[in-house]
Amino acid sequence: MRFSELQRAIPDITKKMLTTQLRELEYHDIINRKVYAEIPPKVEYSMKEYGKGLIPVLKSMKTWGLSHLLHLKELYGEEHIK
Amino acid sequence: MRFSELQRAIPDITKKMLTTQLRELEYHDIINRKVYAEIPPKVEYSMKEYGKGLIPVLKSMKTWGLSHLLHLKELYGEEHIK
Repeated sequence: MRFSELQRAIPDITKKMLTTQLRELEYHDIINRKVYAEIPPKVEYSMKEYGKGLIPVLKSMKTWGLSHLLHLKELYGEEHIK
Repeated sequence: MRFSELQRAIPDITKKMLTTQLRELEYHDIINRKVYAEIPPKVEYSMKEYGKGLIPVLKSMKTWGLSHLLHLKELYGEEHIK
């Protein structure tokens, strides 16, 4: 995925924060950053095999989070998002 | 658990941040805050039944995190903690 695609997928993140997070994920061996020797230079980010080990963890967080949104709605009604 | 016990269990957290986090966990129905009508007042925090649904998620994060520490050590040696 290109930087611009990631930005579109996460519209609330600043460019600076996305850069910081991508560098950290690269340091942690989760993603790969491939620079193509082109003019203009092209950069592609992808998950590394090691990084895919995080997917079950992220899925369990997502599943809990989605069901928690319903729980908050039951507790506080539609006005729960803060 | 008492506030002071939580502080001892998480020594790097400030009093203010721990207070903020506990209020948020209470709002999210994860923990219960019980105030005893005593002099001096006593406050006890406990997990709610609903909150226990988070435990498998936290366990999967912990398991991944511990094994990731070993991975970082393999990649960068002992000097990996930043």
